[in-house]
Amino acid sequence: MNLEAVYHRTKFNWSYAYDDRTLHIRIRTKKDDIKQIDLHCGDKYGWDRTNTVVPMTLWVSDALFDYWQATVQPKFRRLVYYFALNDGDRTVYMQEKGFFDDAPVIFHEGLFDFPFLNPADVHTPPAWVKKAVFYQIFPERFANGDPTNDPEGTEQWGGKPGLNNFFGGDLQGIIDHLEHLTSLGINAIYLNPVFEGTTNHKYDTKDYFKVDPHFGTNDKLKELVKACHERGIRVLLDAVFNHSGHTFEPFVDVMEKGASSAYADWFYVREWPLTVKDGVPTYDTFGFEPIMPKLNTANTEVKEYLLKVAKYWIEEVGVDGWRLDVANEVDHAFWREFRKTVKGVNPDAYILGEIMHEAVPWLLGDQFDAVMNYPFTKACLDFFAHDRIGANQLANRLAGQLTSYPSQVNEVAFNLLGSHDTARLLTLCEGRTERLKLATLFQFTFPGAPCIYYGDEIGMDGGHDPDCRKCMEWDPQKQNGDLLQFFKQTISLRHQYPALQDGALTFLQDQANDQNLIYERRDAQDRFVILINKSESSSVFRATIANEAWTDIVSGTPVTAEQGQLNFELPAFGYAILHARIGGK
Amino acid sequence: MNLEAVYHRTKFNWSYAYDDRTLHIRIRTKKDDIKQIDLHCGDKYGWDRTNTVVPMTLWVSDALFDYWQATVQPKFRRLVYYFALNDGDRTVYMQEKGFFDDAPVIFHEGLFDFPFLNPADVHTPPAWVKKAVFYQIFPERFANGDPTNDPEGTEQWGGKPGLNNFFGGDLQGIIDHLEHLTSLGINAIYLNPVFEGTTNHKYDTKDYFKVDPHFGTNDKLKELVKACHERGIRVLLDAVFNHSGHTFEPFVDVMEKGASSAYADWFYVREWPLTVKDGVPTYDTFGFEPIMPKLNTANTEVKEYLLKVAKYWIEEVGVDGWRLDVANEVDHAFWREFRKTVKGVNPDAYILGEIMHEAVPWLLGDQFDAVMNYPFTKACLDFFAHDRIGANQLANRLAGQLTSYPSQVNEVAFNLLGSHDTARLLTLCEGRTERLKLATLFQFTFPGAPCIYYGDEIGMDGGHDPDCRKCMEWDPQKQNGDLLQFFKQTISLRHQYPALQDGALTFLQDQANDQNLIYERRDAQDRFVILINKSESSSVFRATIANEAWTDIVSGTPVTAEQGQLNFELPAFGYAILHARIGGK
Repeated sequence: MNLEAVYHRTKFNWSYAYDDRTLHIRIRTKKDDIKQIDLHCGDKYGWDRTNTVVPMTLWVSDALFDYWQATVQPKFRRLVYYFALNDGDRTVYMQEKGFFDDAPVIFHEGLFDFPFLNPADVHTPPAWVKKAVFYQIFPERFANGDPTNDPEGTEQWGGKPGLNNFFGGDLQGIIDHLEHLTSLGINAIYLNPVFEGTTNHKYDTKDYFKVDPHFGTNDKLKELVKACHERGIRVLLDAVFNHSGHTFEPFVDVMEKGASSAYADWFYVREWPLTVKDGVPTYDTFGFEPIMPKLNTANTEVKEYLLKVAKYWIEEVGVDGWRLDVANEVDHAFWREFRKTVKGVNPDAYILGEIMHEAVPWLLGDQFDAVMNYPFTKACLDFFAHDRIGANQLANRLAGQLTSYPSQVNEVAFNLLGSHDTARLLTLCEGRTERLKLATLFQFTFPGAPCIYYGDEIGMDGGHDPDCRKCMEWDPQKQNGDLLQFFKQTISLRHQYPALQDGALTFLQDQANDQNLIYERRDAQDRFVILINKSESSSVFRATIANEAWTDIVSGTPVTAEQGQLNFELPAFGYAILHARIGGK
Repeated sequence: MNLEAVYHRTKFNWSYAYDDRTLHIRIRTKKDDIKQIDLHCGDKYGWDRTNTVVPMTLWVSDALFDYWQATVQPKFRRLVYYFALNDGDRTVYMQEKGFFDDAPVIFHEGLFDFPFLNPADVHTPPAWVKKAVFYQIFPERFANGDPTNDPEGTEQWGGKPGLNNFFGGDLQGIIDHLEHLTSLGINAIYLNPVFEGTTNHKYDTKDYFKVDPHFGTNDKLKELVKACHERGIRVLLDAVFNHSGHTFEPFVDVMEKGASSAYADWFYVREWPLTVKDGVPTYDTFGFEPIMPKLNTANTEVKEYLLKVAKYWIEEVGVDGWRLDVANEVDHAFWREFRKTVKGVNPDAYILGEIMHEAVPWLLGDQFDAVMNYPFTKACLDFFAHDRIGANQLANRLAGQLTSYPSQVNEVAFNLLGSHDTARLLTLCEGRTERLKLATLFQFTFPGAPCIYYGDEIGMDGGHDPDCRKCMEWDPQKQNGDLLQFFKQTISLRHQYPALQDGALTFLQDQANDQNLIYERRDAQDRFVILINKSESSSVFRATIANEAWTDIVSGTPVTAEQGQLNFELPAFGYAILHARIGGK
């Protein structure tokens, strides 16, 4: 038994409240090392009358470890516990302070302790996100609905995007094309920044209370949100609170007046005067970007100002949440107040942080609901686009990711395959639509809310910024109709079956072929086995699956698995979605 | 190389801000497995011009693991990093997503990321606690300074303590005996609850705004705090916010009016009416104790009420902090508001949670400054009192404990060897004063603030509650004068040398004898090696120590360590404190 590999810690992603009554307890062991784990648990003040043994389930595995989980609903909302690990030969007892050969005799001393399940601490992200299919819009490039507000020097729609040029996209353009989203099946939009700024991406805010005049007016944004809500589409705005733009009035004032400015403490000045030396600003910025001075979010005035912004757009315009730019460089204390403020005016608002790394410190219930799932993006690209990893490694990486967070966070993860910050999926797939389709199918059948980057659904391509920010193609002749149809079907499938939204996930391994990706999603009603042949040749899928009356959803034909042994051939880049109503009903 | 044993995670106790400029990075490896670890780090937006390699220090070890630490002050307050682990044969590179044979080539993708060192998030406990020596007073049993306020049926001072009897101890009694504390060297008091309640321990609060009439008046508490402050003694009160008493007016109201009471939501009622069925109250309580109904700290009115209490005693009476009873059963959200409120009126207030278990979720800077260090208590008792473990295991357990928390938390840990909730130290030592002395010496030369339970310093004994709550013995003839002298000397030594307060700690191992405890404390000025012979026979201490001009502080004689090899004999239960001014100055 590799004891050094065993890991558990109370709270965080290891023992947490899933809801007001339920605890999830997880433990990690070396891969293939342990045969069985029993969770011995009870109330610390009444062990004798409450103690019980819950066998743990081997939940998922990654490259090095197995992860086990148990679900417990302690009557008095308190739980002390220890683990009995058995490797087939011997049993070892894990308590808070180490490993022992014998079960503990003095209870509630030395045991792990989940002290009390307080409802106030339960992390409860908005339930609608589980059913959401997002669509990301970069406003300057989606549609030009109102040429009268075009910036000077606006170029012809469809021209070559540069770092600094403009094409006239605006909010009216979005309003004009909402039917495209509705027909696709979209029920949530994430908009890149819409507040006044000097750049085409608007990540250099000038005025947080004003829609950029080239995009429209505050009233136009209100109109857009209203039109979306009428279609059942929620709207997420981009909160760029880590830094402002260089034309932000307080910063202009500091530039002018230096240390004597009333706003001097709104920014982090390392050295006066504000200037750039050898490419490094003398004040903190996003990266080393002089036009994006970092805001001092610990300053009371700054805090009040930004919280007012957060509240204003929810109350005045009705936005349904915020995506937080460069979220991990802003202090936790600010985000805690931000959450209180936002949930105070709309408890159903979705708070989504942009964090590329493991983000538990922000996901404990006091800050964000979820983060942009870039680890998901990277793993999918490595498998579907770049052929860098096999199905097994894909499963390992995604499993490792799932175990990092409480389940309710995974259920509302923001799963993207590309954005304004990455090359487009089709380009990364080297134009191979069949690869893009498989990646998309996977995205839409994975736990968490999928997000489509505008235009991916009609076959737009593009390398890194600025190339990934081309003007949306509205000419049906130039859109990939077959691809669009595929997106519609896949989205519709996800909407139809809750099992594909927040159902349980199990990766099945095809020992014979590591390009064969097989996984199961299930809830109390439905069970799916999805087969993906991510290779250039036809392939036979072999795996042990549940003994159900399976139907191939794509072809509508029944599929038999003799004694649970699947034997199913798929052409190159083919896929199948096997479906069964639980119990055959 | 045992890769499964290697552990690191950003934030928490693994990578955290020690102060506004400094990060501590820690990593865990299997014991004796790794020879060297280099931390490769730099700024994520400017790796090329900032990257550097910091060799990590093997900091401490426990039974299974080695813990390494590095200190970094990143110029732009951002740090991405990876680890290069070398076991003598090969080097493995650890990044956020796993282990690799080659160093990463694309920087800031896949590396660990400490995104930004925001001063608002730095955990900064009050500095005075590092220099504090606490004294815990159970008010009913310390001294009866005002017989006019004695409860009915008060028994003779010095009688046998029962669960429910009274001896008349009060605040005037404490005021009368402050000179005892001053002469002992005490500069902080922790008082068990002083607010009105029906029991002798007052953990069943009736009125949070009123000092118990048997203890005195609110003015008397003010007088006590003032008298303490004049002597440089700080005062910590006991905040019993998890539950109230059954005579607390809101609870009385709920008892009377049931679900229609205006206070019905102040408590967690599982089933109406309020009663006790088969020993289990129909409402949540502390344990299953009907007279201690759990407060619903998520209810806005309850929250406001308790926060007003927290603020009131600081503003009105000047108390220097709060010890939080049953702290881990109250919701985190409440404690976050509590911290803001308390630090808002006194940034130097000490917030100390009663938590018996590992407590990182409360020690991230947004809730407590420290917790009562019961793991320290248990480890010390197992070694000094019960002979259950050797010096090596003591070191292992305490090292494991130190690695669980950020260093600034360890520096203000509340290290106790007994309390009103445990049998007295002398009794656990079976009356052997020599054992108690060694344990105390260890306590006073260990990182964290030591606390003496009233009377331990004069040789009081007693088993579990109620026996550990005897009346303080004030007759000098019945006090152990030799022991008192020992306490005074030891406390004075700690006050004299900052190295014994927050200096670095290293356990040295005597391979030949596991009853020989040897450890070093040091800072820039002083270096100590402390030798403790916790055995019934004389013992020779052998260890490698620094080559300094050592003096035995107790005897005042020089000690030579030939080529750094210590060879020093101590009688049964003897100890020596070797001291050197750094560089011999």
